[in-house]
Amino acid sequence: MPRVAVVGAGSWGTTVAALASAAADTVLWARRSELADEINAVHTNSSYLPGFDLPVALRATADLAEAVGAADVVVMGVPSHGFREIAAAAARDVRPGVPVVSLAKGLEQGTQMRMTEVAAAELVGHPVGVLTGPNLATEILAGQPAASVVAFVDQAVATELQELLSGPTLRIYTNPDVVGCELAGVVKNVIAIAAGMCDGMGFGDNSKATLITRGLAEMARLGIAMGGEAATFAGLAGMGDLIATCASARSRNNSVGRALGQGQAIGDIVAAMNMVAEGVKSSPSVLELANRHAVEMPIVEQVAAVCSGTTDARTALARLMSRASKSEFH
Amino acid sequence: MPRVAVVGAGSWGTTVAALASAAADTVLWARRSELADEINAVHTNSSYLPGFDLPVALRATADLAEAVGAADVVVMGVPSHGFREIAAAAARDVRPGVPVVSLAKGLEQGTQMRMTEVAAAELVGHPVGVLTGPNLATEILAGQPAASVVAFVDQAVATELQELLSGPTLRIYTNPDVVGCELAGVVKNVIAIAAGMCDGMGFGDNSKATLITRGLAEMARLGIAMGGEAATFAGLAGMGDLIATCASARSRNNSVGRALGQGQAIGDIVAAMNMVAEGVKSSPSVLELANRHAVEMPIVEQVAAVCSGTTDARTALARLMSRASKSEFH
Repeated sequence: MPRVAVVGAGSWGTTVAALASAAADTVLWARRSELADEINAVHTNSSYLPGFDLPVALRATADLAEAVGAADVVVMGVPSHGFREIAAAAARDVRPGVPVVSLAKGLEQGTQMRMTEVAAAELVGHPVGVLTGPNLATEILAGQPAASVVAFVDQAVATELQELLSGPTLRIYTNPDVVGCELAGVVKNVIAIAAGMCDGMGFGDNSKATLITRGLAEMARLGIAMGGEAATFAGLAGMGDLIATCASARSRNNSVGRALGQGQAIGDIVAAMNMVAEGVKSSPSVLELANRHAVEMPIVEQVAAVCSGTTDARTALARLMSRASKSEFH
Repeated sequence: MPRVAVVGAGSWGTTVAALASAAADTVLWARRSELADEINAVHTNSSYLPGFDLPVALRATADLAEAVGAADVVVMGVPSHGFREIAAAAARDVRPGVPVVSLAKGLEQGTQMRMTEVAAAELVGHPVGVLTGPNLATEILAGQPAASVVAFVDQAVATELQELLSGPTLRIYTNPDVVGCELAGVVKNVIAIAAGMCDGMGFGDNSKATLITRGLAEMARLGIAMGGEAATFAGLAGMGDLIATCASARSRNNSVGRALGQGQAIGDIVAAMNMVAEGVKSSPSVLELANRHAVEMPIVEQVAAVCSGTTDARTALARLMSRASKSEFH
């Protein structure tokens, strides 16, 4: 039986660990020992997945070395701001050559590195890739039919993970385009903030669909400039994840956008949240990548301005609409 | 001042006529003289746009010859099943060379012809094209920001219509890809039925986003096989319109799908509707086009089966999900 370590017991990390525990000996690392104890004793994660029962087979620990030391696969479910530190700590105990899968959908602030780049720097010699797609944790845990993408350059590793994570209600596809899949996940959180602003200001389905369509176009422009494949952005990791996130009232990034659209201040919104909305932090980093690759990203630009407090949502959306007089495909 | 005739006083025809009346002398043809009288006397269309006031400048008539005889542009806002008959009748009075814009998003049953093909056959020698995009009538009429696409092979005609229909809240783009834009509008109504089935069965945003993503892929496959451009399907006429329709509780096709997903019979649903849900009628026609062009369209296939009463929604969705084990991009 393969042994899986999932590092990080947030809603998605816990969900992936719960799925993996059906076919593998799975350990979930939680930073707080109280949370590890709760998962072991009563099989719930009331902080991040209230109301859900976790599989009895899923074990948790607050000891990182214990979690990763015996693992055949390490899944990194920590947000981007803590990713490098945890990856470096895990590196001391992970056995050589074990694949590392990132679940994080953000960039490292300052360096603008993708999480697989951070992982490759800290876990030298390990194959690194991502698990991504239209995957709202609570729907997957409720057993609703869904699909997801595992991206690794090495097809053999991807196939191994595909078998490990596939289940009766979750289909896993493989894709060799790590850059495209990973970047799509990062940018969609920024676009989801803009879509939430649209909702929060009371606009309807036309306006929001237009914004999502333009958002995917600018995501693909950056991704292709960075070496990603166009097909990735038209698939589940690109369009699929973007649509699910922009539609969902449960998405943190979408929620931040709605609050901004209703006129709340970014500082107040972030202070009131229990979880990280990656798009808030990554919007300036994505903009930095866009500048570096000479790609125009007008929606990301406005979201970054609103998230830094230099513009309000109303002004930002008005700018996007007035800009729209250019041709659709240029 | 240019003179515009809009033929058909349903919700979208009336909305386009209301927009055009700001910049052009506009006449709206209604089949029922009571509706024409209501529009002229009290400036409302209570059958199709209850609660909205129409511009005082918008005139209506039940006399087709009067409506189209002096027009510089004819906009055809009739559903696909009545399109040829009305186009043939209009042809007797339309002046030579006047452009004809189709708003219909269906195919002719039996021939599987697109509405611009029907228009070209009945209005010989007229430039024909479409107006399409993420355009829920009531949101546009409420003045919400939106964008739309005018597709004509002749760029000069497209630019003329762009100027005529653009307004402070509606941006009009041009696209020379008539086949792609028109086919996208047809297929999206079929996919919207499938998305509605997903909603009706209680599935969430993951499942629906996955279905929409796959739906766009099969729409693009057929469109490209028929001579359309890939970029069209990634833009407002393709992805934009699809997302808006699948998200909207106001979409007729989406509503039909929800009712099917809740277990209602297709005959009862159609009998209870005031307006035409184009996707119900066009699903077998789209499937016929797919077979003719040797393109796989699994979602359209299942929708056609449910709409013909040979399969129920639950079985159809189960078939789609089990089929999903193939690779994402093949």
